[in-house]
Amino acid sequence: MNYKMDYNNIFFKINTSLNKIKDHGKVASYIPELNNIDPNKFGVHLTTLNNEHYSIGDSNEKFSIQSIAKVLALTLAYKMKGEKLWKRIDVEPSGTSFNSLVQLEYNHGIPRNPLINAGAIVICDILISNLENPKKDFLEFIRELSGNKTLNFSSKTAESEKITGFTNMALVNLMKSFNNIKNDIDVVMDFYFNLCSIEMTCKELSRTFLFLTNDGIDPITNNKILSESKSKRINAIMLLCGFYDEAGEFAFKVGLPGKSGVGGGIVAIHPNKYSIAVWSPRLNKKGNSQKGMNFLEKFTTKTQSSIF
Amino acid sequence: MNYKMDYNNIFFKINTSLNKIKDHGKVASYIPELNNIDPNKFGVHLTTLNNEHYSIGDSNEKFSIQSIAKVLALTLAYKMKGEKLWKRIDVEPSGTSFNSLVQLEYNHGIPRNPLINAGAIVICDILISNLENPKKDFLEFIRELSGNKTLNFSSKTAESEKITGFTNMALVNLMKSFNNIKNDIDVVMDFYFNLCSIEMTCKELSRTFLFLTNDGIDPITNNKILSESKSKRINAIMLLCGFYDEAGEFAFKVGLPGKSGVGGGIVAIHPNKYSIAVWSPRLNKKGNSQKGMNFLEKFTTKTQSSIF
Amino acid sequence: MNYKMDYNNIFFKINTSLNKIKDHGKVASYIPELNNIDPNKFGVHLTTLNNEHYSIGDSNEKFSIQSIAKVLALTLAYKMKGEKLWKRIDVEPSGTSFNSLVQLEYNHGIPRNPLINAGAIVICDILISNLENPKKDFLEFIRELSGNKTLNFSSKTAESEKITGFTNMALVNLMKSFNNIKNDIDVVMDFYFNLCSIEMTCKELSRTFLFLTNDGIDPITNNKILSESKSKRINAIMLLCGFYDEAGEFAFKVGLPGKSGVGGGIVAIHPNKYSIAVWSPRLNKKGNSQKGMNFLEKFTTKTQSSIF
Amino acid sequence: MNYKMDYNNIFFKINTSLNKIKDHGKVASYIPELNNIDPNKFGVHLTTLNNEHYSIGDSNEKFSIQSIAKVLALTLAYKMKGEKLWKRIDVEPSGTSFNSLVQLEYNHGIPRNPLINAGAIVICDILISNLENPKKDFLEFIRELSGNKTLNFSSKTAESEKITGFTNMALVNLMKSFNNIKNDIDVVMDFYFNLCSIEMTCKELSRTFLFLTNDGIDPITNNKILSESKSKRINAIMLLCGFYDEAGEFAFKVGLPGKSGVGGGIVAIHPNKYSIAVWSPRLNKKGNSQKGMNFLEKFTTKTQSSIF
Repeated sequence: MNYKMDYNNIFFKINTSLNKIKDHGKVASYIPELNNIDPNKFGVHLTTLNNEHYSIGDSNEKFSIQSIAKVLALTLAYKMKGEKLWKRIDVEPSGTSFNSLVQLEYNHGIPRNPLINAGAIVICDILISNLENPKKDFLEFIRELSGNKTLNFSSKTAESEKITGFTNMALVNLMKSFNNIKNDIDVVMDFYFNLCSIEMTCKELSRTFLFLTNDGIDPITNNKILSESKSKRINAIMLLCGFYDEAGEFAFKVGLPGKSGVGGGIVAIHPNKYSIAVWSPRLNKKGNSQKGMNFLEKFTTKTQSSIF
Repeated sequence: MNYKMDYNNIFFKINTSLNKIKDHGKVASYIPELNNIDPNKFGVHLTTLNNEHYSIGDSNEKFSIQSIAKVLALTLAYKMKGEKLWKRIDVEPSGTSFNSLVQLEYNHGIPRNPLINAGAIVICDILISNLENPKKDFLEFIRELSGNKTLNFSSKTAESEKITGFTNMALVNLMKSFNNIKNDIDVVMDFYFNLCSIEMTCKELSRTFLFLTNDGIDPITNNKILSESKSKRINAIMLLCGFYDEAGEFAFKVGLPGKSGVGGGIVAIHPNKYSIAVWSPRLNKKGNSQKGMNFLEKFTTKTQSSIF
Repeated sequence: MNYKMDYNNIFFKINTSLNKIKDHGKVASYIPELNNIDPNKFGVHLTTLNNEHYSIGDSNEKFSIQSIAKVLALTLAYKMKGEKLWKRIDVEPSGTSFNSLVQLEYNHGIPRNPLINAGAIVICDILISNLENPKKDFLEFIRELSGNKTLNFSSKTAESEKITGFTNMALVNLMKSFNNIKNDIDVVMDFYFNLCSIEMTCKELSRTFLFLTNDGIDPITNNKILSESKSKRINAIMLLCGFYDEAGEFAFKVGLPGKSGVGGGIVAIHPNKYSIAVWSPRLNKKGNSQKGMNFLEKFTTKTQSSIF
Repeated sequence: MNYKMDYNNIFFKINTSLNKIKDHGKVASYIPELNNIDPNKFGVHLTTLNNEHYSIGDSNEKFSIQSIAKVLALTLAYKMKGEKLWKRIDVEPSGTSFNSLVQLEYNHGIPRNPLINAGAIVICDILISNLENPKKDFLEFIRELSGNKTLNFSSKTAESEKITGFTNMALVNLMKSFNNIKNDIDVVMDFYFNLCSIEMTCKELSRTFLFLTNDGIDPITNNKILSESKSKRINAIMLLCGFYDEAGEFAFKVGLPGKSGVGGGIVAIHPNKYSIAVWSPRLNKKGNSQKGMNFLEKFTTKTQSSIF
């Protein structure tokens, strides 16, 4: 890929072909706030290492990035605590659905990885123990990464999740019973639900993840976010654990490290090349964006840019 | 057993033989309030259908009956709701340890039986939906059964459990996520922790369970507590599910329906004959009173009163 | 029950009422030989401790007793090896379906009890290690118990099971990998499949189990089959583990120790009273005889003879 | 990495540093034939896309490649059957130890991926259904890939595994019970045990996997082994599933697609760059070569050649 790719043209062609297929996916309904979204929204934004931009559709519209934010929480915790992190979370794929308690009980309260709900909750607990003003400090961190000083939590979405988040409450209580949660459960879950409520556009999202395409250094600001080794490791974790029970499917078909959220967003990165964010709210049975998955599969095939 | 048994003499002989064995059991430590109990306490009280009384040791001292109270909550809920109860709880032995979330997740929030924690929590939820003043009304019910109008919850023990009951909080949240808890979680758990905090003496406990030896009719007051069929069914449930992961062991060695609690109490009944309560705070590895189990095994062997 | 029961009249009435209900149960189809049975066969035979006999329907017709024979294998092994048996098999209810490998793997090759397939296979292994001519000696044992010197294995049924018994082959291999099978797998499974192929009539079956109603002594011959304690323990195991994933249901509704087989047979005993065998090939979803379960529920209700 | 790497020098330095560390790993003992190997053997061979060779230690000594051969069986089956393969095997990481029956039972006989034992057994079954002379044809296939016309199965090792392979026999029987094995079990397992018995040197192994670094085309012979897409997908599967319960750890620390075997071998590939084979018989607790893992971690760090 030494020549300049005409990504916009490729986006257009893939979109045209996908529009011919009926998308039977359903919008996430268990979080009331997400249920109000127009299911036909669709946006893509790709940012290259050289700060070139390509996009299609609703790429400048905010959406709830949900679980994608777990990568950002992991980044900050990993930056602060280093390899000590792995005493409290493992780095293995989970092999079961995203909210399973079975494995957590079997492993005595140690989550399989930092991108399943249980693991992200432990990360929140760690951030709370290590940040002076957890929510404010975290917001500052992602505002800098995204280059947007107005990024914020959506208190409406966070409240909405609190009311229905019984499975997550079960997870955190189970981990607390194994002493793998150090702070008060209500404080931890308030942080967690706020984390998942962050809203970004596709453009902001692809820009935010750019440091992971560049061995930990933000290519726009030249800020060192993470060491090269840590940056590569987060990519490895995304590849193995970024798509719930469909990580294999995504690695197999798309071939890039990435992370999805039930809001219908997916971000994926190609080391040394680009960061791409896709948004389409209809989800497949495994809880990942149906059109988003299909789009990225066609995209890496056409551009021959799988990492394998 | 047509002739009159000299139970007091049998008690004395068994106790003498057991005192020769060192009891390595440990008092339950996860509930702070229970940790303060003298581990060497030991009491037995047997009440016959004819209101004859036999006892040894600390049989008139109050202790926390803990999970034994689940049978009483089940009795009241079964009396009020009848067979409809079994839409929300199964009647099968659990086959795993007493606080496992695995089976609950596998069975979509339906507990295996009403005597494991999850099942008792559903029973609490049902009582709250059906009683005007749940805690007060329940107290009245067991006061009548026990013949002691001053029986009460121990608010100290209940508070103590609330602070550490993370596994139970995980259970109730998981069931709520499957919509098998109808009331507010805090209200349900307040009732549950109070239920488990009830204190009785061995004498009161054996008297309270007398109706289950007499096909549902309290032989002292002649009050009909349950129908014959329901009374037999509760006995069946106790035999199959009354001792956590040691139900088989108890049925095998003792051969009576019964229920244990982590406070070190055990109650067992012989249909048409007697109700016996034992208390010794040291627990074996499965969470049942070590000396209590041994005592009852020797007792049913000597008196040939297994139901098998 | 001091007066003489008119059991035949009770049988007649229950049968009449059950005949009004359509039985949607299906005959076991995974064993080809069982699939040829007339699904409408129905027989009952009750033998009292005093050798009185009551029956209805096809009670003198042979059928494949299947898993019921596991109790007889357990009896012989327990008689020979005593409590050492429990080093290789537990006595707890299984809590999952009858052929589950999960629990076996979790428990490192130790079956939960001797009446699930895995447990019965270990019993077969033990008998092979301890009998000179395993199949011949075992046959002699049950011929004496049944009072019928011509009882035999059905080689046709045994062969039929061998061809399709892949789940059982998985079980025995898994246990062998944990070193809980000492003999050659083919020899063990030949014994096991022959054990399950034994054919009896309801009359023979109820007579065979009579020793368990009489504390281990055959009331007809006065032979001591087992000690009182061992006899009671086998009854306890039947009550807790005799009906696959429906043990609770049977204890709850029928209230007697018993054992079922996929051939549609059920035997149940009332200590000190009677042994009853029922046969009806249509099975419910849990693999137990539909009409057999219903018949026994009505029978113990009408005769008030639950042990609870 | 446009300049020529002095790999031999890097090998030397890493080996020197590793030799200072005591390797507490144990040689696989459950397969008697493997137990006879000198545990201190150590070899590395790297082959570049341009057919350059770098090596250290016992790189020309044959060893049992064991599970590494599963990738070659998968390659041939995928080449012949295409995407139809995935009806009988999934492509998700397993999340539990390499011989677990739990997940297989839960998923009704469909293995999680083609690199765990169960999955490889299904691949063997597929090859048997589709090859005229399965063992002979497969041998021919890998002889061509390796460029060594004398490669062979080790009948001694195969026999050795047959005698002790009870867990694998449990797996295949369980899958047969779910109808996911079409051929006779003995034939399937004979193929499987022979597959795992293949012996290669590090040099041969790294050469054999070269086609996976080159989008499916063998760079030496220019033979098209697989399509580009299929080749990338096999790399994705190796990354996610190649190291039993340590896939995450390997992706995280080494960052290359690869596959290990209990003989102590590991092969890993860097797309468009090189294929590297390492051999050291001492295994860590997860069953992967201890020194092999450490060597590759240091190697990709020093050469900055993780794919992330």
